[in-house]
Amino acid sequence: MSHYEPPLAGKLAGLTSSAIRDLLKLTADPNIVSLAGGLPDAELMPGARIAAAAESALRDSAALQYTESPGWGPLREVLAGRESDRLGRRVDIAEVFVTHGSQQALSLLAEVLLDPGALVVVEDPAYVGALQVFRAAGARIVAVPLDDEGLRVDLLADLIAGGERPAVVHTVSNFHNPGGVTMSPGRRQALAALAEEHGFWVIEDDPYGELWFDRPAPAPVASYAKSVIRLSSASKIIAPTLRVGWMVAPDRVCRAVELLKQGADLCGSALTQQIAADLLTDTAWLAGHIETVRGVYAVRAKALVEAARDNFGDTLRCSAASGGMFVWAEFTDGTDTAELLPRALDAGVAFVPGRAFAVRKPYANAMRMCFTTAAPEVLTEAMSRLAVAAGHRVPVQSAQL
Amino acid sequence: MSHYEPPLAGKLAGLTSSAIRDLLKLTADPNIVSLAGGLPDAELMPGARIAAAAESALRDSAALQYTESPGWGPLREVLAGRESDRLGRRVDIAEVFVTHGSQQALSLLAEVLLDPGALVVVEDPAYVGALQVFRAAGARIVAVPLDDEGLRVDLLADLIAGGERPAVVHTVSNFHNPGGVTMSPGRRQALAALAEEHGFWVIEDDPYGELWFDRPAPAPVASYAKSVIRLSSASKIIAPTLRVGWMVAPDRVCRAVELLKQGADLCGSALTQQIAADLLTDTAWLAGHIETVRGVYAVRAKALVEAARDNFGDTLRCSAASGGMFVWAEFTDGTDTAELLPRALDAGVAFVPGRAFAVRKPYANAMRMCFTTAAPEVLTEAMSRLAVAAGHRVPVQSAQL
Repeated sequence: MSHYEPPLAGKLAGLTSSAIRDLLKLTADPNIVSLAGGLPDAELMPGARIAAAAESALRDSAALQYTESPGWGPLREVLAGRESDRLGRRVDIAEVFVTHGSQQALSLLAEVLLDPGALVVVEDPAYVGALQVFRAAGARIVAVPLDDEGLRVDLLADLIAGGERPAVVHTVSNFHNPGGVTMSPGRRQALAALAEEHGFWVIEDDPYGELWFDRPAPAPVASYAKSVIRLSSASKIIAPTLRVGWMVAPDRVCRAVELLKQGADLCGSALTQQIAADLLTDTAWLAGHIETVRGVYAVRAKALVEAARDNFGDTLRCSAASGGMFVWAEFTDGTDTAELLPRALDAGVAFVPGRAFAVRKPYANAMRMCFTTAAPEVLTEAMSRLAVAAGHRVPVQSAQL
Repeated sequence: MSHYEPPLAGKLAGLTSSAIRDLLKLTADPNIVSLAGGLPDAELMPGARIAAAAESALRDSAALQYTESPGWGPLREVLAGRESDRLGRRVDIAEVFVTHGSQQALSLLAEVLLDPGALVVVEDPAYVGALQVFRAAGARIVAVPLDDEGLRVDLLADLIAGGERPAVVHTVSNFHNPGGVTMSPGRRQALAALAEEHGFWVIEDDPYGELWFDRPAPAPVASYAKSVIRLSSASKIIAPTLRVGWMVAPDRVCRAVELLKQGADLCGSALTQQIAADLLTDTAWLAGHIETVRGVYAVRAKALVEAARDNFGDTLRCSAASGGMFVWAEFTDGTDTAELLPRALDAGVAFVPGRAFAVRKPYANAMRMCFTTAAPEVLTEAMSRLAVAAGHRVPVQSAQL
């Protein structure tokens, strides 16, 4: 017998592991303060409340069985109610589809909306989970930069005026990962109008919208046009372990996604979907819980940005820490963050260099910092360590000379 | 503003919903005894044991967070131990990958193992979840029939001798869905030898192996060659709600699957994976639990086959009900099961016509019957109703004339 080993598919040659995931493996060292992750704080998640919901759900054997591919009916009902409030119109249950986290919504939508070679417009810097999916779908990807008001819709309009015909535009509209920014109401309206005029889909990817610090996020892009598919998730407001994400999309999109979901994994977990429905229905409790998370994250975000200012002054320009989980920071003195990273790890702090999120521009001087899992004093210490690594710490005595 | 609606991907035109799923929607009528489903019996699932495991897992906040893409480490450890016993060799944790049910393993493997147009050999009749995945992957599909010893490996050898070069051969080796049969030890060895000689992958899809009634299933095909990827699942032995399936595959296959899993849905549920690990580690309890399920299903299977014999005699040839969840039955008098179905629904019984699983042969006289969820007397009544629908019930008095 020969021991020839069968080959893998040829296209795998082009796929590489997420640089961020690989980096996360390196930063498990307890001496390093890692701002490189992208995890919500598990200590703030409602473990006891979830345990009570699990016990209650498991009293009925339906919680043990396969569930419907589009999601457990009562969960879709409560989501339809929440999304009706958010979108300012009646969202029907047929427009709500529950996915295994919103990452699965992205990957199923890529199959449903894109022919090979179709044009997808992403933001620059981009959410890497979306990039990975669109690349795997064989899309042609064009990036449009962000500024303080979010996606440069004017540049998107220029692209279209120049003859480009996007099939999909992907945006993280609130508290961008990694960019930190939130799209302004004017841009939202302009994006929706462009989508309707030119017949493309917008995927409005919104896992962070409820994590606002000072004022609620603006009305969703999806409130302005039906060709905007809205994604959200229980991962950041309850817990990732539920693997409950959802989309609001026209019925025919949901039915196409349903066909693919059957092939992808048949259905989600009846148990975790029933837990999610229980907690999302308990609106008074949920409002209080989310307020607590917002409050804790706001203090951490502000501590990080203040410490960055104290250590770097104008040399490090940070995004406004107005919500979500991330601060995007750019060195104005030419510091290359990929070169800085090994020195930063030596000094005991980790971040993700801007290059990991870059599509067209290199973002060589930028980095993403996650503030969710460390106490304010730890974040302050992290910025001191970063200053040492970057050679920005001027000893106090020398400064006084 | 125009209200032109954006299009969906062109390939969706070729995808249709599973006929079985659509049929299931029609058989929710409580007056119909449905043998059309494919669900394990939720009343036999260990709800209280799962609730206790959930409570215990949720005492640690790690159960709330994202988990590793290949699966929670301790779950992979216990699976590696179980699979070592099954395969008769040491299975390393790097060879074990946890998926969102084994359906997800199939869909990720289709991406990892198949270039477009690659040849996939399936069984005829085929597991429709596999057909759906391989079709969506753009594979060329050739079917090789089953007989009472499972896949006709001799016909596969003929295909190869004729110049065909399969990339993948898919088999449900134990208690086939829908065919009911189990591949004989000789065929297993022959299939593994062909795979090694000709350098193709075998996907051995084994969700039912532990549900044997009279004697344990033979050693897996995967025990004979490393190019056999073995899939299994907790859905039939514990509960589908856990969405815990797994594959045992060479490390390089697992690493390729990991890249795709990140894009597909990031990771599974830490909570349900921890529950699965808890129950799979409790070997004494688990052995007793599986024995109970086996015992109940065996009684039901035998009641169904006996009632079929009582009502139809030699006119309906049933597969040996030796394990799993299904009986495959073929009318020998030319009865067309697709034509029979509407009359059967009128008489109060449902099944899945053979056509739903057909690839090359039409299986127009065949049907799949699931015996897991009804009591023996209900299954007996179902066969009486089927006989009425088929015109096979000869009233006792007329028979005596």
